[in-house]
This record gives sequence, C-alpha cells and structure tokens, in this order.
Amino acid sequence: MGSVTTDLSPLYPADRLARVRDAATAAGLDALLLTPGPDLRYVTGYDAKQLERLTCLVVPAAGEPFLVVPRLELPAAQASPAGNLGVELVAWDETDDPYALVAGRLGTVGRVGLADRMWAVMALRFRAAIPGAEQVAAGGVLGELRMRKSVAEVQALAEAGAAIDRVHAAVPGLLRAGRTEQQVGDDIARLIVAEGHAQVDFVIVGSGPNGASPHHELSDRVIQQGETVVVDIGGTMPSGYCSDCTRTYAVGEPPSGVQEYFDVLYRAQEAACAAVKPGVTSEEVDAAARDIITAAGYGEFFFHRTGHGIGLESHEEPYIVSGSTRPLEPGMAFSVEPGIYPGPSGARIEDILICTDQGGLRVNNAPRELVRV
Amino acid sequence: MGSVTTDLSPLYPADRLARVRDAATAAGLDALLLTPGPDLRYVTGYDAKQLERLTCLVVPAAGEPFLVVPRLELPAAQASPAGNLGVELVAWDETDDPYALVAGRLGTVGRVGLADRMWAVMALRFRAAIPGAEQVAAGGVLGELRMRKSVAEVQALAEAGAAIDRVHAAVPGLLRAGRTEQQVGDDIARLIVAEGHAQVDFVIVGSGPNGASPHHELSDRVIQQGETVVVDIGGTMPSGYCSDCTRTYAVGEPPSGVQEYFDVLYRAQEAACAAVKPGVTSEEVDAAARDIITAAGYGEFFFHRTGHGIGLESHEEPYIVSGSTRPLEPGMAFSVEPGIYPGPSGARIEDILICTDQGGLRVNNAPRELVRV
Repeated sequence: MGSVTTDLSPLYPADRLARVRDAATAAGLDALLLTPGPDLRYVTGYDAKQLERLTCLVVPAAGEPFLVVPRLELPAAQASPAGNLGVELVAWDETDDPYALVAGRLGTVGRVGLADRMWAVMALRFRAAIPGAEQVAAGGVLGELRMRKSVAEVQALAEAGAAIDRVHAAVPGLLRAGRTEQQVGDDIARLIVAEGHAQVDFVIVGSGPNGASPHHELSDRVIQQGETVVVDIGGTMPSGYCSDCTRTYAVGEPPSGVQEYFDVLYRAQEAACAAVKPGVTSEEVDAAARDIITAAGYGEFFFHRTGHGIGLESHEEPYIVSGSTRPLEPGMAFSVEPGIYPGPSGARIEDILICTDQGGLRVNNAPRELVRV
Repeated sequence: MGSVTTDLSPLYPADRLARVRDAATAAGLDALLLTPGPDLRYVTGYDAKQLERLTCLVVPAAGEPFLVVPRLELPAAQASPAGNLGVELVAWDETDDPYALVAGRLGTVGRVGLADRMWAVMALRFRAAIPGAEQVAAGGVLGELRMRKSVAEVQALAEAGAAIDRVHAAVPGLLRAGRTEQQVGDDIARLIVAEGHAQVDFVIVGSGPNGASPHHELSDRVIQQGETVVVDIGGTMPSGYCSDCTRTYAVGEPPSGVQEYFDVLYRAQEAACAAVKPGVTSEEVDAAARDIITAAGYGEFFFHRTGHGIGLESHEEPYIVSGSTRPLEPGMAFSVEPGIYPGPSGARIEDILICTDQGGLRVNNAPRELVRV
C-alpha cells in the first residue's frame, strides 16, 4: 500500500545489481532468479507485488540481466526504480508461458539461485522449464550482502525505530483496565500508520497470562488492574525498512514477584546490548543475556533466541542465537530481546541495534523500565 | 492481525483433513507438506504466520498427520482450530533442525506435495532432508478442492462482497477534484477495515491516464474535474475469505468518447455474467465479454484475462481466460472484470460471481454505471 515520493535512490543504489551479480558468480551460480520480495527489492528497489503471474529478475553470470513482467505490471515496473537500471523489461501476455520465456533466454545453466521467498509452485515450474539446473537458495549470496547495512540503510532503520518509539510513547494512554487487547491493538495499528509506516506488520498485546506466550497476538481478553502487558509492535516504512520494538507495561501495581524478574530481564537486556561490538559472535550476545537470566534462576523461562536481524524483512540474518559463531560486523542490524515467561505473566524488552565500531547503537529509545500506567 | 471470535467451524469442517488426505493419495502423493498460507488454513483453519521458523502440517498417505511448530508458536497452534483436529502438535526448539525432524518421522516417501506458496528456501531444505522424494506442487490436489466452495464458503464470500460494496457506496463522497489518489486511497483503506475486513489487500485509485494502467495503485497525482477514476479494492475478512470489486467513477462530466466505450464495457460485463452456468467453460465466459468489446472495435484495449477465482486467496483457480477449457461447476467463485483501456483513460467493471445451478450469482451489487460524483 502507498506510493513513495521521497528519493529512495541512496537506499537502492544503481550499482548494487552489478555487485549482486559478482557475488553470485563468485558463489558459483550461473544465474539468479528473483521473484517479488525483499531480495528483488534489495537488488532493484522495485517493490513488486507477489502475484500468481510471474515477475522475475533474471541475473545471468554471463550476459545482461532482464526483468520478466506480466504486461499488466509493465507500467508499474517502468515507473519503479527498476525502470532506471538499464535492465531490459520483458513483458509477457496472458496466454504466454513466462517460465519457458526465461528458460529460452537463459540458455544452458548449471546452477541457479532462487529468491528465498519464491513460491514453491514457481520454483517447481522453473525446475521443469530448466530441467538440467541445480536449484539453490539465493539467500546464501544475498543474505551476506543484505546483512551488512549501508549508511543509508542504517538511517532508514533509525527512522523506523523513531517511528515505532513514537507509537510506544502513546501506549500508556491506551492501556487501561476494562479495555480489551483487541481494542488497544486496533488503536496501536492506526498509530503505526499515522506515525509514518506504510504498513502494520504485527501487533502483540499480551495481557496477564497472555504475556507469558511470546507470540500471542491479540484477543478479546479484558485487561485487568494490577496486570502486566507485553506490547511488541512493528511495521514497514515507505523505504521498505522495518521497525520492531517491545516494552512491558504494568496497569497499576504489578503482581508480586514481577518486578523481581523484570529487574533481572532489564540487566540481561542491557548486558547483551553492551556486549555488541565487531568481532563478538552472535552466540556470545545471546549468552550475555542468557547467563544473567540463568544465574538468577529463570533460565527455563527464557526459551527463545535473543534476537534476529532486521532490514527489508522483520526477521533476517544475522540471528542472535546459541550455536551461531558468526562474528558481528559494523553495519549489522538486529534485535536484542530477551524475555522471561514464568507464568502466569511474562515480560520482554526489545531494541533494534546497529553494530558499529563504537559498539551497539540502539535505534529504539523509549523507556525500558516496567512502565506503570 | 486481529483475532476472530465468531464460530468459523462451518467454514473449516473437521472432516476436511481426511478428504484432503484421500485426494492426495488418489493423486499418487505419499505426503503433503503444508507451510503457513491458504492451503494450510483451508485444511485446518489455522491462520499461521509465515515465518522463517518452520511451521508445517505433514499429511502422510499412510499414518497419522502431525503439525510441526516452533515452540514459540505452540500456544497459538493449540488455540487455533488445528488444536481441535486430533492432530499431534510437534514442537521444536530454537536449536533443533525441524526439516530433519519431519524427514525422520515421515520415513521413506517417493512423492511429496508442497504447498504452492511454501518459500523456496524451505522447499530446498526439504529436498536436502528428504533426498529421494520427488517434489510436486500440492495445488494440483488442493486447488481442485478449494475451487468448489461449500455453502459456508459461499456465505463468507457474500459477506465479503457486502462489506466491499459498503466501501464503494462511500467512494463518491471521497472522490473530488483537488484530492490526490493517495488521499482517497488512505480513506478507502480505513473504510475497508471499518466495514469489517481484517486486512486491506489492495487499493487501486487510477485517475485520468492512470486508469489506463490496470494495475496502477496509488500516486500523488491530483484528481482533476472531468476525469474518470478506476477504483479497484479488496481485503480479507476475519473468516479468511477475500473481497474484490471494481467500479469506474467520473468526477463531473467524463471526457468525450468515454461514455461510448464504457457502454460497450457495461454490455460486455453483463454478457459475461449472463454466460455463467454449470458446464460453460472458463474461456467461453472470457469470450462472452471479449467478443462484444472486439466487435465494437476496442479489442486491442482489453489486454487482460476476464477474471480469476477467489476464496482464501484474492487470485486462485479457476482463471477465466482464453485457453481454459475447464467447465464451470456449482460453487466455483471468480471475478468477471473486463476492462477497456484506450488511453488517455480507461475503465473496468468487476464483480465476484458464484456459479450456481441457476446461473451466476453476483455477490457485489454496487451500481455498475459510470457513476458521476
């Protein structure tokens, strides 16, 4: 939804296509096939709709890239940033077979990279149309590029962070006993758009026991006085870049014991944020939070990873999880969001951070305390 | 977004899973692998989030179905209709390999059907985890079931149609010279939700020359007096079923020549709707509209198919397109939406129809004329 009038060219530089092709070639791919989604947008800036009609950017290792589009989408493709890349736009008509069209132009290829989010039905049609080719996920190549954000991308994430912070600033005015999670969530969804997002991605309002289920969304449960409420919200900005921020609120005085585990959580989140710097591994950041929670006796109640990368997708590389020995690098962007869910309530604190040479830079700055409303 | 409190069990009957398994077995599939999306929702009623963490309903031809879910999503899965199907829920932890888990439980299989919208990265991981199996698109099996709507599904589509009709009823009050397409579109998006949809799927406001590009969405173009505006809008109801309706409006007196081709379009849309009955083929419905437009000399300006099926997806089988010899059957639901785009303006009229023994039943009833506002 929504058109974009601001200049997005710094976010989607024209030389990116060549860099992507070079990376694909270096990875032994003879071609990339990118259908609508974050990979296509990253490479071209084109926020194409995912339709049953095939739209596909074909990036051969040898030869010129071309963008196959349904004729209906040709004006949109021409008007998009993809129209300014010097890439040939190849329109197909309603009764054409676009898979055969791609196969014919591509010729013989041994190994093709598919956009991670390409629909399986399309991957299988490409398999039939290009029977000799081995298919691999293009995310292996694109993820390596996408996880290292440019200055313009960091700026876009900071703008997204500021927008969702403004929504959190309004949340205390929305939360009160007698309202349902759904009512609060509807208000939050409107604010997410009003504060500059192009779309709402998720709204979690977990009151009382629902706060102990990290991915609970909304229900008709009525919020009660003396309960905590986990509010985890995010959207996508017109730039394409995402926000994601969690705060835990208390409607009146929280139940006994909550402040104790919240204080542990607060220290854990601070410690993980403080651990962020180039060369530290993802699992070390995870451990920085987890060790504090475990030492305080709440380890079994923190049963999810500490974070996920963010950019054109809400969840992308790098994942901040036990077992990931990936060293952080400047420009990487990810959430740090430990939680403690002992039941019958729970709490989580989440910020998006950018890894810089000076350490972790938070793009979210709403108060992290257990805010009484 | 949004929880559902009404009883959806008639829409998602508990015996559907067994019928789907029987159909898959009859099609020679040893198992279905259904990740979040319309196929999974159709089979189980579970509106699962599409995440990088694998959620997958596994339906073996022999043996019991099971639903693999990330542990974080277990409460949501249990609370969903899938929790009442007697299907085992198998939770996996953050550091588990859910693909190996599925492969291990499934054992040796020769041919597996993948949800059409499964992400390619997941299909490729299943390929690696179950190396002997041939992968095919499950849509071949599920599409056959999904395109024949039950009475409850028809009712859900009728409710969606009535909701979008209420939005169109408000459009004349929004369209006026001096407003931008974006402003009108923002108002329409709010109304789509206010009138009962759970989410906005698309908002096209094509003013003046933008009306000649069928899939133009929104821009900052200012609507002028004396222009036509194509408004094509739709959303998804809490039931999961979609709406989709197009009307063309004139802000004041339309440019000369527009009423002439609009009258042709109106007759073409009427003729295609009147052609709908069991046994008539999809391409005959397409031809009923196209022949009238061609005979009037506008054939080259109607360059898209006449319609698409609709249900849990905005676009699904059956497609109403030249070359499709599929005979219509009672319960099939699809759009009839011819357009004429001669430039510098264009027009389209779209209704959703249900094929019944008595002919085509329109679920959209807003005035189809070129409405002057």
